Amino acid sequence: MFRLDRTPARLSPVDTHAESRLTVATRGEGFTDITREASAFLTEIGARSGVFTAFCRHTSASLTIQENADPDVRRDLLTALDRLAPQGAGWVHDTEGPDDMPAHVRTLITGVGVSIPVSDRRLVLGTWQGLYLIEHRTSQHQREIVMSFIGHATT
Amino acid sequence: MFRLDRTPARLSPVDTHAESRLTVATRGEGFTDITREASAFLTEIGARSGVFTAFCRHTSASLTIQENADPDVRRDLLTALDRLAPQGAGWVHDTEGPDDMPAHVRTLITGVGVSIPVSDRRLVLGTWQGLYLIEHRTSQHQREIVMSFIGHATT
Amino acid sequence: MFRLDRTPARLSPVDTHAESRLTVATRGEGFTDITREASAFLTEIGARSGVFTAFCRHTSASLTIQENADPDVRRDLLTALDRLAPQGAGWVHDTEGPDDMPAHVRTLITGVGVSIPVSDRRLVLGTWQGLYLIEHRTSQHQREIVMSFIGHATT
Repeated sequence: MFRLDRTPARLSPVDTHAESRLTVATRGEGFTDITREASAFLTEIGARSGVFTAFCRHTSASLTIQENADPDVRRDLLTALDRLAPQGAGWVHDTEGPDDMPAHVRTLITGVGVSIPVSDRRLVLGTWQGLYLIEHRTSQHQREIVMSFIGHATT
Repeated sequence: MFRLDRTPARLSPVDTHAESRLTVATRGEGFTDITREASAFLTEIGARSGVFTAFCRHTSASLTIQENADPDVRRDLLTALDRLAPQGAGWVHDTEGPDDMPAHVRTLITGVGVSIPVSDRRLVLGTWQGLYLIEHRTSQHQREIVMSFIGHATT
Repeated sequence: MFRLDRTPARLSPVDTHAESRLTVATRGEGFTDITREASAFLTEIGARSGVFTAFCRHTSASLTIQENADPDVRRDLLTALDRLAPQGAGWVHDTEGPDDMPAHVRTLITGVGVSIPVSDRRLVLGTWQGLYLIEHRTSQHQREIVMSFIGHATT
């Protein structure tokens, strides 16, 4: 059987909600690492423990947590999304171009929101995890992401 | 390189958790827009800022945030899900009918929960974003969604 | 038309954030039910109402909420993931073995985080829902999951 171990719970008060908006000018299809901006937001407000939420306000761009080491991983992820939701696959909705409907499908698959616990003043991301915006359109776009924190902060 | 801009953080207190349950009678496979019900919940409790979470209590229906303008987009999304998780693809689990296992796979791909920040008394949805329940079974079902808010409210 | 019913909101205070880390030793590709550990965490802290968040600190393992009854469903879900992200599909990134890049794609599709409301001291999971870690690598791995709660607790 598999083994499960759980640490005793650590408690803290909840006193603060904070919000900041991030605008990203993308250069067409691809990943943009926004981990540093998320961390800067948490540092600005003195976040100690709680939950961080990021939300992408678009239907053809999305958010994910993925490997931050080998860029080939992100290249292969784009290939995978291209295979899962290809252009020219008989979509009805094509008024905005052949890359538009595939972008909606890729957003459906990957999602527009992520929540990450904050502990000891930091996102609890694993060593190889980064927070990424994925642009699914082929041309440049301006994308807005709302970042939110709820928990204990000492500003 | 891409450009990143971030607004200064806005802080607010956290004083309120609220919950409401939404029951949707679906008419078989398709999207049901529940954005209005989510907003009505937030208005009822006087939500000002925080995070809204919706959770679908089923394994063959899911939640997503998608385009609210052209209905062809939602038609194409159903086509995409049908291609990603087709009926009659040699599934072992088929006691509940040929549409059951594809419904589980589509739920796995799309997810049963979404979290959306609340700012200035409103969900921070983008102009073209709506919150949708996706029914993946072909027949009618009654679906229950738990809506939750944590943040600052003035009731 | 579909029918929508919503219950009146129930309010509670927000006083507590809690965190606990769960380590799972997986036995290669497959599902591990961690619902019991999530519930034990909530019981330990006396959680009454709020939101529970789980986060998997890896890029080749993920979290999902799926059917807890017929094990054939989980077998078919693995089949579905294998079809959506197959081995030997011409991936560039293959330094960690042929199962590595498919594992990243499956993590992208299914996601590393889930949020579940807590009501009347319990997760609001539906009757057939369980919380699962999905190991996407073929060999054994040690996986860490951060569990978090924000809401009203009476410890």
